[in-house]
Amino acid sequence: MSGSRAVHYMGDRSLSIVDGLTAQPASGQVRVAVAYTGICGTDLHIFHGDMDSRVRPPGVIGHEMSGTIEAIGPGVSGWAVGDPVTVMPLDWCGQCPACLRGHNHICHRLNFLGIDSPGCLQTLWTVPASTLVALPAGLRLDHAALVEPTAVAVHDVRRGNIQSDEKTVVVGGGPVGLLIALVAQSVGADVLVLEPNPQRRAVAASIGLAVHDPNQSAEYLDDWTGGAGADVAVEVSGAEAGVTTATQVLATRGRLVLVAIHTAPRPMDLFRLFWRELTVIGARVYQRADFEEAVRLLSSDAIPAEALITQTVSLDRVADAFAALEAGTAVKVLVNCANHVVP
Amino acid sequence: MSGSRAVHYMGDRSLSIVDGLTAQPASGQVRVAVAYTGICGTDLHIFHGDMDSRVRPPGVIGHEMSGTIEAIGPGVSGWAVGDPVTVMPLDWCGQCPACLRGHNHICHRLNFLGIDSPGCLQTLWTVPASTLVALPAGLRLDHAALVEPTAVAVHDVRRGNIQSDEKTVVVGGGPVGLLIALVAQSVGADVLVLEPNPQRRAVAASIGLAVHDPNQSAEYLDDWTGGAGADVAVEVSGAEAGVTTATQVLATRGRLVLVAIHTAPRPMDLFRLFWRELTVIGARVYQRADFEEAVRLLSSDAIPAEALITQTVSLDRVADAFAALEAGTAVKVLVNCANHVVP
Repeated sequence: MSGSRAVHYMGDRSLSIVDGLTAQPASGQVRVAVAYTGICGTDLHIFHGDMDSRVRPPGVIGHEMSGTIEAIGPGVSGWAVGDPVTVMPLDWCGQCPACLRGHNHICHRLNFLGIDSPGCLQTLWTVPASTLVALPAGLRLDHAALVEPTAVAVHDVRRGNIQSDEKTVVVGGGPVGLLIALVAQSVGADVLVLEPNPQRRAVAASIGLAVHDPNQSAEYLDDWTGGAGADVAVEVSGAEAGVTTATQVLATRGRLVLVAIHTAPRPMDLFRLFWRELTVIGARVYQRADFEEAVRLLSSDAIPAEALITQTVSLDRVADAFAALEAGTAVKVLVNCANHVVP
Repeated sequence: MSGSRAVHYMGDRSLSIVDGLTAQPASGQVRVAVAYTGICGTDLHIFHGDMDSRVRPPGVIGHEMSGTIEAIGPGVSGWAVGDPVTVMPLDWCGQCPACLRGHNHICHRLNFLGIDSPGCLQTLWTVPASTLVALPAGLRLDHAALVEPTAVAVHDVRRGNIQSDEKTVVVGGGPVGLLIALVAQSVGADVLVLEPNPQRRAVAASIGLAVHDPNQSAEYLDDWTGGAGADVAVEVSGAEAGVTTATQVLATRGRLVLVAIHTAPRPMDLFRLFWRELTVIGARVYQRADFEEAVRLLSSDAIPAEALITQTVSLDRVADAFAALEAGTAVKVLVNCANHVVP
């Protein structure tokens, strides 16, 4: 057993920091000393109580991280203590129709680590060895905490088959939207972010992205695409208006990549889908190739991790991380899970 | 000039049969002696006055046909008087963004013959030679009047990339739905038609299609797909409930081919699109390859034309054709445009 400290979600906007002991990893498992955990919009939803059907208090949340292997269970090969790693937080059944068709990342009985089972907002995290993704020595561990959200973006760009020179509209300039815009740029796309919030527009502009207020004139589209419309629109806003915009901006045979979670049915202009022979493509989480590409992008200049990390707080100040995200101005807030003394 | 007889749409459910003279074909044109014209749902919409913004009375409608070349204008090569032909009724601008991207079948300024310009519900029809599609000598001209709607179905199956053995649900068992089901079967798909109308279900069953009432138990889907869901759903109903059904029946990574015209926005379950990584594909009209495949299918046993042609009426009895379609029991009603005496 090893001493550890964990953040417990206690329900109803309440978190507790709890010291405890963690068992040795079982067969097929490894224990990772967590370096950094990023807090994302899903964590905020959990914090707000919106996902209590999946996260039963007290639950350890968090699924964006970096760390080093601290202990290795029986039957695990190919890894050594001290290896820098991140975790692809998906554990699938291997038996359901999705798994049997090779789409195990969207397994019908998916165990999403950090939601359906304990996550990485703790000092020591025990995970199946199969979820490990190696990090190169040259990648800083704080930057590597961005691998998971970047893998989301890589998956979205890959699902949309976004190609070099394609005019790509990203509808929504939150953290995921920015990463999608950056990844689309990395494949050579000509990207424009649509974002109504001026603070978010300023952040997007500060990292070199073209950005436009969708509530201002619509002439930008004809000016930019010569009247043809965009090749691709990526819906990341989650808003009804975002769906409308993403449908409207597309050229004939354009592709709409649906990334955001829409909890209510949305009115869709199916006549336009038919008339212009558009395609709508759902995209959810990621596959291993997406993680590997995300590691590569974060090791290059494609993703300006330093500019995206608004703030880093210690595990003991985790409440500050949630407050910063609630304020709406932060892009990525990291929790330094190693920077404290475990009793 | 040659004597001809034409059916004029006069607005507000009114048709007139008019005798007149038709000019010699101009440069690049041919004049076709129309043998058979099929009446489709779009013609019925026009008859009901729903498309008066595009069809200004008096207008000659009709766009599903067969015939033989009767006269050839200057500058047309490769065709001879007497050649059996059908017409792909699309005339595009060649200049708009859709045309410039190679999608001229959905040209932004498309002239659809029979809607935006005179159609084939007449004895002599003058068309651009570029719209002609050759018919083999062995294909009966009444059967060949089904080439156009069959080409719609071929296009839909191709847009959906429907493959051999794929479980394919066709939502809506009207004439287009039946043809889509037959074309999907021709590529080896395992097809089920969903249709609430018992008379339409009986027609589908009579031509050997598997058919189910969507208002009955939903167990058929799990029984049929082993709990996985269907690979493809084709929405041909045009109803809000059809969109819901087509979204619900799909397996992980399933494809929804959107064929029907939905004039109002429809509520869509975008969460399911995201969760199961579904794809929605708009499909409209056809391309030349679709016409050529439709000719091939009608020349084989794949499309039971005889069973699909419910009734054939003379040009002078065209009102009977519209009445039969309005009654809702007919599949395909043909107008014999040659069977009369032109003054």
